[in-house]
Amino acid sequence: MSGYFGPVQPLAYDPDAEGPALRHYDRDEVVMGKRMEDHLRFAVAYWHSFGWEGGDPFGGRTFDRPWFPADTMELAEARAEAAFDFFRILGAPFFCFHDHDVRPEGGSLTESRDRLNRIADIFEAKMAEGGPRLLWGTANLFSNRRYMAGAATNPDPDVFAYAAATVRDCIDVTHRLGGQNYVLWGGREGYETLLNTDLGQELDHMGRFLSLVVDYKHKIGFKGTILIEPKPQEPTKHQYDYDVATVYGFLRRYGLENEVKLNIEQGHAILAGHSFEHELALARELGILGSIDMNRNDYQSGWDTDQFPNNVPETALAYYEILKAGGFTTGGTNFDSKLRRQSLEPEDLVMAHAGAMDVCARGLKAAAKMLEDDRLEAARRDRYAGWNHPEAQAMLAEGATLEGIADRAVADGLDPQPVSGRQEILENLVNRYV
Amino acid sequence: MSGYFGPVQPLAYDPDAEGPALRHYDRDEVVMGKRMEDHLRFAVAYWHSFGWEGGDPFGGRTFDRPWFPADTMELAEARAEAAFDFFRILGAPFFCFHDHDVRPEGGSLTESRDRLNRIADIFEAKMAEGGPRLLWGTANLFSNRRYMAGAATNPDPDVFAYAAATVRDCIDVTHRLGGQNYVLWGGREGYETLLNTDLGQELDHMGRFLSLVVDYKHKIGFKGTILIEPKPQEPTKHQYDYDVATVYGFLRRYGLENEVKLNIEQGHAILAGHSFEHELALARELGILGSIDMNRNDYQSGWDTDQFPNNVPETALAYYEILKAGGFTTGGTNFDSKLRRQSLEPEDLVMAHAGAMDVCARGLKAAAKMLEDDRLEAARRDRYAGWNHPEAQAMLAEGATLEGIADRAVADGLDPQPVSGRQEILENLVNRYV
Amino acid sequence: MSGYFGPVQPLAYDPDAEGPALRHYDRDEVVMGKRMEDHLRFAVAYWHSFGWEGGDPFGGRTFDRPWFPADTMELAEARAEAAFDFFRILGAPFFCFHDHDVRPEGGSLTESRDRLNRIADIFEAKMAEGGPRLLWGTANLFSNRRYMAGAATNPDPDVFAYAAATVRDCIDVTHRLGGQNYVLWGGREGYETLLNTDLGQELDHMGRFLSLVVDYKHKIGFKGTILIEPKPQEPTKHQYDYDVATVYGFLRRYGLENEVKLNIEQGHAILAGHSFEHELALARELGILGSIDMNRNDYQSGWDTDQFPNNVPETALAYYEILKAGGFTTGGTNFDSKLRRQSLEPEDLVMAHAGAMDVCARGLKAAAKMLEDDRLEAARRDRYAGWNHPEAQAMLAEGATLEGIADRAVADGLDPQPVSGRQEILENLVNRYV
Amino acid sequence: MSGYFGPVQPLAYDPDAEGPALRHYDRDEVVMGKRMEDHLRFAVAYWHSFGWEGGDPFGGRTFDRPWFPADTMELAEARAEAAFDFFRILGAPFFCFHDHDVRPEGGSLTESRDRLNRIADIFEAKMAEGGPRLLWGTANLFSNRRYMAGAATNPDPDVFAYAAATVRDCIDVTHRLGGQNYVLWGGREGYETLLNTDLGQELDHMGRFLSLVVDYKHKIGFKGTILIEPKPQEPTKHQYDYDVATVYGFLRRYGLENEVKLNIEQGHAILAGHSFEHELALARELGILGSIDMNRNDYQSGWDTDQFPNNVPETALAYYEILKAGGFTTGGTNFDSKLRRQSLEPEDLVMAHAGAMDVCARGLKAAAKMLEDDRLEAARRDRYAGWNHPEAQAMLAEGATLEGIADRAVADGLDPQPVSGRQEILENLVNRYV
Ligand SMILES: [Co+2]
Ligand SMILES: [Co+2]
Ligand SMILES: [Co+2]
Ligand SMILES: [Co+2]
Ligand SMILES: [Co+2]
Ligand SMILES: [Co+2]
Ligand SMILES: [Co+2]
Ligand SMILES: [Co+2]
Repeated sequence: MSGYFGPVQPLAYDPDAEGPALRHYDRDEVVMGKRMEDHLRFAVAYWHSFGWEGGDPFGGRTFDRPWFPADTMELAEARAEAAFDFFRILGAPFFCFHDHDVRPEGGSLTESRDRLNRIADIFEAKMAEGGPRLLWGTANLFSNRRYMAGAATNPDPDVFAYAAATVRDCIDVTHRLGGQNYVLWGGREGYETLLNTDLGQELDHMGRFLSLVVDYKHKIGFKGTILIEPKPQEPTKHQYDYDVATVYGFLRRYGLENEVKLNIEQGHAILAGHSFEHELALARELGILGSIDMNRNDYQSGWDTDQFPNNVPETALAYYEILKAGGFTTGGTNFDSKLRRQSLEPEDLVMAHAGAMDVCARGLKAAAKMLEDDRLEAARRDRYAGWNHPEAQAMLAEGATLEGIADRAVADGLDPQPVSGRQEILENLVNRYV
Repeated sequence: MSGYFGPVQPLAYDPDAEGPALRHYDRDEVVMGKRMEDHLRFAVAYWHSFGWEGGDPFGGRTFDRPWFPADTMELAEARAEAAFDFFRILGAPFFCFHDHDVRPEGGSLTESRDRLNRIADIFEAKMAEGGPRLLWGTANLFSNRRYMAGAATNPDPDVFAYAAATVRDCIDVTHRLGGQNYVLWGGREGYETLLNTDLGQELDHMGRFLSLVVDYKHKIGFKGTILIEPKPQEPTKHQYDYDVATVYGFLRRYGLENEVKLNIEQGHAILAGHSFEHELALARELGILGSIDMNRNDYQSGWDTDQFPNNVPETALAYYEILKAGGFTTGGTNFDSKLRRQSLEPEDLVMAHAGAMDVCARGLKAAAKMLEDDRLEAARRDRYAGWNHPEAQAMLAEGATLEGIADRAVADGLDPQPVSGRQEILENLVNRYV
Repeated sequence: MSGYFGPVQPLAYDPDAEGPALRHYDRDEVVMGKRMEDHLRFAVAYWHSFGWEGGDPFGGRTFDRPWFPADTMELAEARAEAAFDFFRILGAPFFCFHDHDVRPEGGSLTESRDRLNRIADIFEAKMAEGGPRLLWGTANLFSNRRYMAGAATNPDPDVFAYAAATVRDCIDVTHRLGGQNYVLWGGREGYETLLNTDLGQELDHMGRFLSLVVDYKHKIGFKGTILIEPKPQEPTKHQYDYDVATVYGFLRRYGLENEVKLNIEQGHAILAGHSFEHELALARELGILGSIDMNRNDYQSGWDTDQFPNNVPETALAYYEILKAGGFTTGGTNFDSKLRRQSLEPEDLVMAHAGAMDVCARGLKAAAKMLEDDRLEAARRDRYAGWNHPEAQAMLAEGATLEGIADRAVADGLDPQPVSGRQEILENLVNRYV
Repeated sequence: MSGYFGPVQPLAYDPDAEGPALRHYDRDEVVMGKRMEDHLRFAVAYWHSFGWEGGDPFGGRTFDRPWFPADTMELAEARAEAAFDFFRILGAPFFCFHDHDVRPEGGSLTESRDRLNRIADIFEAKMAEGGPRLLWGTANLFSNRRYMAGAATNPDPDVFAYAAATVRDCIDVTHRLGGQNYVLWGGREGYETLLNTDLGQELDHMGRFLSLVVDYKHKIGFKGTILIEPKPQEPTKHQYDYDVATVYGFLRRYGLENEVKLNIEQGHAILAGHSFEHELALARELGILGSIDMNRNDYQSGWDTDQFPNNVPETALAYYEILKAGGFTTGGTNFDSKLRRQSLEPEDLVMAHAGAMDVCARGLKAAAKMLEDDRLEAARRDRYAGWNHPEAQAMLAEGATLEGIADRAVADGLDPQPVSGRQEILENLVNRYV
């Protein structure tokens, strides 16, 4: 026990508590036939919660954690100790990690791998004692200066190879720890200026890299899902995995649309000019919805603020799309959230997560009720009901032609009249649930 | 002759002119082995130049043209007269039109089609007298209230059929007039709220519609290119043809990536969070670069301002990407630009186009020089030169595996060192040309 | 009675209703010692609800109201009839109008004024029968093409004079109808391009115009408040009344900061890069908080979407700032909201307003509870408590000097330690109320 | 000599050079009666050029300078050596610094001050040998964690005092080194969340702090200008010095509008939703234009990218506004620009500055020609010529009333007709110069 968070008592569910508690998230409450824990599948992000020091472009570390700067294995172990204390307090069923945030990088690939495995030993032991499971692992291919011009898309093929070795090691560890997914976020797979960039070559290399990863997964028998996390920009001016639609086209181009799914983050959706529910609905329809990072952005900031979720109407609409997709399979709800850099205290970390879990629980319950009541879906079905008619279906069926449809339209003297979209009424309807 | 623009004298090329002239665009000047006219393939947009009345969301018509409101065939004919006078003054080799802006819609599909054909007769005659050729035609599937919830993606199948009939007629006329392309801009193919929208069904209908159009094109022997014009939003909150990458994924999904190309507009690129050159380069690499709408947006406005181009460094970077793609084939440079609504005079319309042609000509010449000098490309090749080495190529070749690459990286003790991206030096280099 | 909305039955307060009702807004419920009706002071905007036809930049009228296009006095009267039916159904205590939306403009200033007065006669009669009171009147100085380059800031002094006459007439009518405020929204007081604009002269003219208005108000004994409604842009590229801070500086410059207050719209706050609560809090601190337009924007759209409010956490934060200011005096909550253009039915108009009233009522009640419980304010006071100490106060008191403070800091060996800002904990706290 | 940049040879002016040179900036060329050096008054920013390590939110140091991390006085001295070599190579007449980037902070205010003075001794010696003059000094009140919640606006009064002591020391050093201005950029004078913020109190403290600074300046006889640098956000969610208009209101509120001017940065203008030329023109009209930071942002990035200027049409419009203001007095053109973090080489730093100086020189020369030719100003005067008429002037003169103007408008039967704003023609005109 690290002692950092005081005596380790799991947060209790208590809707009427004055002090620290979970007011809405009762893991065992059954919603649409499933325990909330199994619906939401919360995960804590190791990097933001235990690796991030509170710096920003205009200032350095504000957090005063005993394990910082964690540049020795001893400090990294102290960090692991604190992290698992925290997981127990929170009662989160999952966690996620980057190699970079669990151990200091070594002087060589081999040393880095060894260190990663030593930390994995600790994780394994803690997990065996009833600690959380691993939602996903990932490799940090963006912080070290060797990756400043990309990893798989670096103009230097040695960086491609270095990244391949790093991903291999991270998948191995993820596999060993029973990870349910493996994530690739291509933070530097993009460009700062087109002037020095061969867009076509870089995209091909990125496709190639992903194919290698998919093959490797199968070879080692890793049953988890490979996930790409889209983001439009930042740190790069343009990131290739821009948004759901872009990644879909990329997967199709390289024949990977049945092998890879997406980890979708609310903040990244917003940066790309979309609502979170749009990205979720689109991924669902394209068959590539995998997991979510449930951390929001500030709508007035043009960069990724990675804040804890706090708006119930927003989380309700997100879980509504997820429930419509049948819920998570290997995926879950990861809080890829940073404390604000002024939130210095251990209590801030605990309460930020507790508040987020409650906001998600409220959202889930509202979404479930809305889906069960079926009013929204009934209105939607009704709106498209015309397409059930035979002559409508015929237009979609094999053999239909533009001229055939056109001739019928003329012959029938079609003069379609607009019908109310009822947007405000539907918005009001949603408000009855949130 | 309409008389609207005074005596019709084509604008002359005169670099030293004080008054109205073309100062940089000499159509016969040979650039990289081709006349500028054949490079740039300028087109005037009928709708903005002759149909737009100067309204905005907070005020109505400001332009006082003799043919407004053009709601009778007589006025529509007067408009055509003025338009062809204008084309002659400008010496633009092409024009583009929507059905909606050349004739008032009729009371039925048949009447609308007949009216369209009567105007097409006039166009045909004028074109035969040496008027401009038709770069592309298109159907306006967004202004009439029947399309308020989409055309191909409307919840009402009758609207789908109505749109099909309209497009059939517009392709027919485009074909008859020798149009080199046919464009679809799905202004209302999108949604205002996800709450009333079946995203998956609408996308399928849109894919279906496009397939029908492609089949029809082949059946009638239309040799032009079918083009989609992406735009992320406005009028809809979300438009399905969001940007180049999104449309690419859409085409792949419905097996149309070899049948359809893109008409890319600078203003729409900006609205989607991209630079124009990004969209052009990406379309080139994806093999779907077709044509451009060379009208810019104001970077500080969040809606599509459709302004005439006026920044030479920007047009140079755009034509650089186009020259790298080998130039236009069926495509060209359309000015889908509106006068500002305070620019009331005929002279404003003439000079706006003349200035735009000059800005494009300067951009093209700078781009051509930059490409011929090969400094930028040499720097780019040099940056990726490592990929020419055999062990680099091996990573991309069949049979390579993640673990094989990883093992080699470990064995070779790779420790790749970052290399300067030289962004500022390359930007300075570009500035030597613009 | 117009019959347009069917039989006119005021919406009842019924929290458990299935059909149309007010579920949260009970006008007589007492909150913090005041009836909700007196807190919220709801107003319907005549223009959006009865004047707007459903057009957008890519399409024309979608709404099929019997009084459109309202270009005769008869149709304008039919519109008034329907509007007052609607006010009664809704039970809104106030309405607002522009001259432009209540009567067709006449062929001269005199005729326009006469028509305005004839409509005002109707209003007066309806109001006397128990209809709503007038929250504010205003003059539309942006729709007619004469105002395309501004009203008070037009380069043509005749437009300044024309606008002065129009405002005079509108204030007169507002005064006669017992209006509680008079609003100026300078939709075209700005510029499209700096290249043709004399910024300094235009600002001086705008200041001059406002001074004339203020003087006139006093002369005629109008006791209402003169309000400016800030907006950063749209229709203009730059609007002089950009945001609260900008208007404050403008008022100071022309000595009007004690004469004029602000009407703050959520959508305009967002367009200016601010949260609504920021604009409200700032206006309160600057002493210029007057009234609000409670219509939101879509965060993903770069133009003013003027949607009905639908997010309770947002309305709660807005009313929290208003309650901290002591509530409205002459101001109120105006819905400067447009139906979406697909919301065609009378029912859409009714339900959109009802839903908005409920969302505001929920927000108000949450805000009041939050303020009464005092937890948020206690935390805030605690955070600044250090400033109550004598040596802190001394730094703010007359006679303090930079060097004196500096010397003390050195002498005391100050080494201030950061304290948690507790942002997430406070956000969680707010979530206990919404 | 540091040796870092190789042999120190000042860059020569050579328009035809192949290698490193100044192609457009000839310091002695006379433009509008003044040497270009005296017009442009270029300054190098010590922090970005010598203090910034190439980190971003997703990665650490990329630059491998011999003086990093500069956390000892020896390294700080090595840095100074390199900086002055660089100044000599560039031939820039000025530099700017923060206390934070010239010396490591000490363990106490006294030690920090002593260290600052020891570095100032070195600067003084170097400057005496013909090095550049000091355009401005400033205190970094945002990097240290003590300032995480603001400096003058910190809830802790000890931070206010600490900041006061720091600014005192920095003004003293700026004064001693003959600085021509002293700048305050309130990077953390703002808030992350309104929930924990007392907006009114913080603004008062900020006003108080600025008054203390102004008083101190006078007391010590510092003749330079006190400048505020506006920025809307980043690092904070909201920064109080949002933009020119906001700072103007702030200065008026605290009676400082005649004491303080502005340092305006292009990138910050863009973040605030303005064009750079807007901010410059507005500051000029308000009488508070002081100096500029000539570094641009990427229009597609929502954060401050601080890139070197590279678009001549943009710099031309900026210098046009400055020339109209009569040029700089104590101000100048500071490059508050960062190399891209991939631009690792000493050559990148030299060439980035050289390119920027050339871009500014081209802009200045274009602006001067445009102003001398007077076409743009003639068009502008002509547009407002109506205001020279007596009845127009009478509306602005004392004694005019709204009703008097209104009565005249009615009596004269005014019916003002719109006049073309000629935007495209003016844009074309500008393009003849750039
Ligand atoms: Co993120
Ligand atoms: Co994430
Ligand atoms: Co457009
Ligand atoms: Co277009
Ligand atoms: Co609005
Ligand atoms: Co409003
Ligand atoms: Co900056
Ligand atoms: Co700056």
